[in-house]
Amino acid sequence: MVCMRTCLALAALSFVIAAPALAQEQPAPVTPGSVIESAAPEEWHSIAAEDLLVMELAPDAAGEPRTIVIQLMPAPLSQPWVENIRTLARAQYWDGSSINRVQDNYVVQWGQPDEGSGGTVKPVPEGLNVVPESAYTVDFAPGLFGGRIYHRDGARDEIVRIEPRPFPHGPRPNSFADPYADAVGFIGGFPAAAAMELTRDADIVSRPTQAWPTHCYGMVGVGRDVSPDTGDGSQLYTVIGHAPRHLDRNIALVGRVIEGMEHLSSLPRGTGPLSFYETEEELVPILSFRIATDLANPPRFEFLDTGSVSFERYIAVRANRHDDFYNIPAGGVDICNVPVPVRRAGD
Amino acid sequence: MVCMRTCLALAALSFVIAAPALAQEQPAPVTPGSVIESAAPEEWHSIAAEDLLVMELAPDAAGEPRTIVIQLMPAPLSQPWVENIRTLARAQYWDGSSINRVQDNYVVQWGQPDEGSGGTVKPVPEGLNVVPESAYTVDFAPGLFGGRIYHRDGARDEIVRIEPRPFPHGPRPNSFADPYADAVGFIGGFPAAAAMELTRDADIVSRPTQAWPTHCYGMVGVGRDVSPDTGDGSQLYTVIGHAPRHLDRNIALVGRVIEGMEHLSSLPRGTGPLSFYETEEELVPILSFRIATDLANPPRFEFLDTGSVSFERYIAVRANRHDDFYNIPAGGVDICNVPVPVRRAGD
Repeated sequence: MVCMRTCLALAALSFVIAAPALAQEQPAPVTPGSVIESAAPEEWHSIAAEDLLVMELAPDAAGEPRTIVIQLMPAPLSQPWVENIRTLARAQYWDGSSINRVQDNYVVQWGQPDEGSGGTVKPVPEGLNVVPESAYTVDFAPGLFGGRIYHRDGARDEIVRIEPRPFPHGPRPNSFADPYADAVGFIGGFPAAAAMELTRDADIVSRPTQAWPTHCYGMVGVGRDVSPDTGDGSQLYTVIGHAPRHLDRNIALVGRVIEGMEHLSSLPRGTGPLSFYETEEELVPILSFRIATDLANPPRFEFLDTGSVSFERYIAVRANRHDDFYNIPAGGVDICNVPVPVRRAGD
Repeated sequence: MVCMRTCLALAALSFVIAAPALAQEQPAPVTPGSVIESAAPEEWHSIAAEDLLVMELAPDAAGEPRTIVIQLMPAPLSQPWVENIRTLARAQYWDGSSINRVQDNYVVQWGQPDEGSGGTVKPVPEGLNVVPESAYTVDFAPGLFGGRIYHRDGARDEIVRIEPRPFPHGPRPNSFADPYADAVGFIGGFPAAAAMELTRDADIVSRPTQAWPTHCYGMVGVGRDVSPDTGDGSQLYTVIGHAPRHLDRNIALVGRVIEGMEHLSSLPRGTGPLSFYETEEELVPILSFRIATDLANPPRFEFLDTGSVSFERYIAVRANRHDDFYNIPAGGVDICNVPVPVRRAGD
């Protein structure tokens, strides 16, 4: 059954980012992993320390440390909430707080424990932004998407010339059809969606009008009460299941987990309403949650430029797997099945 | 922050199936939960005991039992593998085997431990089907999808009359655009995708040609080596992350977890290559894995008929959330964000 491990490696690689140890197991055909491996050094962008948050959970049952690293979103996405999170982290607001809710195939949520879960509530620092719902989306501007945008008929530049095609495609091109938006792409290294509108000039073209980040696995968002409340950033969650894209434009996303995700996704599921933990004993203590700039030895990470040639190849290969394991390339890919390659810098 | 719990309940409900305890918290607007609650008794179909598998893991660290229930796929999907799994279960092949691999945002895999993981390998019983790759898909036949099929321009009957529309939709209809297939729907209560072809008779129409089950969260599949091997069913896995739809038509799906998923999804992630467990101590023992017909007290479950009026309403509400929590209905939904309601029968 050794081959079972080897062969499943090919499938596994589709979810392993930059795994040199597995690279030797790859066959000659180009795979997402091999594209990442062969990316040029200049295609990798370092992540600013002020955009990195480091969360230290209490050690696990075996006494092993549990460190989670989160990358905050770049401008122009969700910046008022991102500023609040930096303010809260600098105030050490989350130190001594806890993970209070773990709902299977949905979210892990942390912050000051709610009443009823046995913890004590801590006031937020002053000066937090009160953010309007309009900040859930950003207006489109040329270059916003860095690279190309993708829709049901394949990859295009930001301005899409209309080429009506009968339904269904036949043969199907690389499809990036998305049930939640007119088009998808990447903004500053983060997955995003866009609404498009038809406009008429020389010929009929379609232009993005608004864009927003998408709720993919590992994305970090801001818990809130009923709208129009948008949350102050004191309650955060991360997605641990299938992308709950219906939350897009309805709740703020501020970043994503780039290391230590398994420490959150493998936590025991809560047994209370909404899968909140029911007893103080169940709460997972957060020892500290700091911006990397406040750490003595800040970790250094870099991500593959989502406007780079290698990233475009990476997407194409994800949409068309050709190797000893795959018989039938999908001919398309879900925006949430294109995890942006992130790695430790200098490793 | 009590409201945080109440409000998040609305979002949470999108992943909670038939949760009476939460129903009282629902506002007047129709929600997926309220549609399920109001479904007529005759819209629920009981699951045959021979289609239920019950897996007992060793108790957890607290001594609590861990029971997982799996529903096998109905004809015409994947039946040669389903037969093998019944043969293996009746031979008690998996009793004393273990969970050997847990890869974050991908799969939990079980069976006889591979060499290298410290376990011993057990031979499979004789008479297992050797299944060709052609069984990954089924030919379309009228009524195959029970209910309607769904594609990028909304819900249709199985025969789709072509109504060319410019890209992008404006205003967007309920979209079920799928990057992996021409259309999606449900076959015998399971999520499925379809390839469509244009045909010409009275007018241009599109008909499904082939269909196949989709790799959604909780779906159970058959581990295999490199193609053309399709696996004998002795190594199984379940999806614990974002739907790896690129595996569709490349690996066999045989069922889904309908109870106890949290016992699999919250297991510690493996630290070896491909996230296999590295030591015998890490392996999670499987005490027994039986067909419900072989149990003294078989559990009884039922699922909401995916061809029913209530299920059609359930899909429509999922595609358009309207309540105090949601401002912007998505106007569409991912096939893997439409979990088929399943509940204990007689509860």
